[in-house]
Amino acid sequence: MANNCNVTEFVGSNPTGDTIGLVIANVDQQLLDAMKLKKYYRSIGIVGARTGAGPHIMAADEAVKATNTEIVSIELPRDTKGGAGHGNLIIFGGEDVSDVRRAVEVTLGEVNRTFGDVYANEAGHIELQYTARASHAIETAFGAEVGRAFGLIVGAPAAIGVVMADTAVKSATVDVVGYASPGNGGTSHSNEVILFISGDSGAVRQAVVSAREIGLQLLGSLGDTPVNGQPSYI
Amino acid sequence: MANNCNVTEFVGSNPTGDTIGLVIANVDQQLLDAMKLKKYYRSIGIVGARTGAGPHIMAADEAVKATNTEIVSIELPRDTKGGAGHGNLIIFGGEDVSDVRRAVEVTLGEVNRTFGDVYANEAGHIELQYTARASHAIETAFGAEVGRAFGLIVGAPAAIGVVMADTAVKSATVDVVGYASPGNGGTSHSNEVILFISGDSGAVRQAVVSAREIGLQLLGSLGDTPVNGQPSYI
Amino acid sequence: MANNCNVTEFVGSNPTGDTIGLVIANVDQQLLDAMKLKKYYRSIGIVGARTGAGPHIMAADEAVKATNTEIVSIELPRDTKGGAGHGNLIIFGGEDVSDVRRAVEVTLGEVNRTFGDVYANEAGHIELQYTARASHAIETAFGAEVGRAFGLIVGAPAAIGVVMADTAVKSATVDVVGYASPGNGGTSHSNEVILFISGDSGAVRQAVVSAREIGLQLLGSLGDTPVNGQPSYI
Repeated sequence: MANNCNVTEFVGSNPTGDTIGLVIANVDQQLLDAMKLKKYYRSIGIVGARTGAGPHIMAADEAVKATNTEIVSIELPRDTKGGAGHGNLIIFGGEDVSDVRRAVEVTLGEVNRTFGDVYANEAGHIELQYTARASHAIETAFGAEVGRAFGLIVGAPAAIGVVMADTAVKSATVDVVGYASPGNGGTSHSNEVILFISGDSGAVRQAVVSAREIGLQLLGSLGDTPVNGQPSYI
Repeated sequence: MANNCNVTEFVGSNPTGDTIGLVIANVDQQLLDAMKLKKYYRSIGIVGARTGAGPHIMAADEAVKATNTEIVSIELPRDTKGGAGHGNLIIFGGEDVSDVRRAVEVTLGEVNRTFGDVYANEAGHIELQYTARASHAIETAFGAEVGRAFGLIVGAPAAIGVVMADTAVKSATVDVVGYASPGNGGTSHSNEVILFISGDSGAVRQAVVSAREIGLQLLGSLGDTPVNGQPSYI
Repeated sequence: MANNCNVTEFVGSNPTGDTIGLVIANVDQQLLDAMKLKKYYRSIGIVGARTGAGPHIMAADEAVKATNTEIVSIELPRDTKGGAGHGNLIIFGGEDVSDVRRAVEVTLGEVNRTFGDVYANEAGHIELQYTARASHAIETAFGAEVGRAFGLIVGAPAAIGVVMADTAVKSATVDVVGYASPGNGGTSHSNEVILFISGDSGAVRQAVVSAREIGLQLLGSLGDTPVNGQPSYI
């Protein structure tokens, strides 16, 4: 996490995903009106990246658990610098600017972990996420139930995601919370199929692991063996 | 068409466009519900790619003619790995898994032909497609009439596509079936103008050839002479 | 501005942004119907690019001031060749083909100036635009009032744009005309936050300059010092 910037609003950056973390102690009222956030706070934390949606939302979920803040906006640009997925713009709100700053710091740190099961090669990427207990960022972004285990399964090109999703739901008893594809479900036209699952922690973990196994083989058929840039956490 | 993958669902891949072909013999019911396909089949074939929409839809049209299958979903991510166009996710349905597998195989093979009139340089690409007899994939994707000749004309950056479209319709008596641009007509915000034409086979072919000629000159004005990676078929 | 193309419709090109300028003296009626322009003209001018929305719209605004033409369509593909922003497709209409051609020529020339405050590094870009007197292209694209000073502030990744926007509106008394983000306001899912401001010329200029200063520092925290490819004009 670099800290080479003297701007007051700068909290830190993380080269993973070209991620930046910022805080505004007292947002201008005219801007706040224009931003149309879910709820108005004077202090907002801002996390954004060129690459990564799942990793940052999972990281933000830990930040929300660890601080007295909430997520007031999540937007997913079509990005990844020519890759098949998203970047992100996540906004935290809180009554206390130090809480908001702390949420941004936690997110910047957690991103190292949550990129652990993103595997890529020259043809695309797969991504897996898992938590034993979803909190409010995951609820806001994916509609999953707070307190239950949650899993995220992504394949790109999107065709791979369809088979990963089928493998996941066949390998364990889990509930499908959502399914997103290039033209539906809020993917901003990324070349991904994404499955959101909920259930008992062991079952969700099993489904995610099975999807990872088949996804790595399918993506590998299009190029080199897919590799992760951070250690796997699932 | 590579075949270096031991996953049951894997049918094959084609390096052109980073194309993968897959089949699921018996899709999980929960997933099937979430996918919201046009019609439910237990057996689905899946073709996806990072680069190419027209080439894969034209190839899928041949697959539908050759097998007892139908197209139940076509989605066009904004992709091409930093280029100006789309990738794709095409789903076939059929009563018999061997039919569905055959449809995927035909598509993977036809893609070598249908990339024949995609010409690119460092500034963009143009694409031409032609068939003397459109079938159901073309009807589903583009709204063209089954059994009539069909032509597709694409220019990127989009400005080039406008002049190609004008040249096409002035060069022969054809019907405009549709026009798509970055903000309209389902392009997923690609930097393309696309014209869909229908009519007598000689006229459609003439219109497509005229558009190709002017498109190559205009795209060439922005960089090197545009080249195709496969032999021209029109 | 190159002129190495013998096609009648070719007006010129500009390597900045991979920009091409074209004119059609008498558009085919069938095509004109399909294009659904704001107003029908037989003669249309076409400017398109792989990279740049603000620069081309600001340039087109000068073209509209200088000629007897109007803007009949502006569309913003998600492009920049793997970067975080847009390309564009801008269509001019006029009663006289020589007016339309002149509008395209002015736009191609002005682009050299309007790219002056686009600064980029490997992580993203920031963009600033300013005019003391907005005309009809700016009104059409951004909803700003004709005749007033207008400023445009862009940061990518989008998080940087939020802080730039806040800094701008705190540094001078200006009116927020609009705010666009990856999921709202017509950005075609680019990884940008964009603020549109209006007001007295001195105040707008001050706001833009303040946003530029903080934007350069924030973007610089993610990589090399951001640089502009053309001389700054603000």
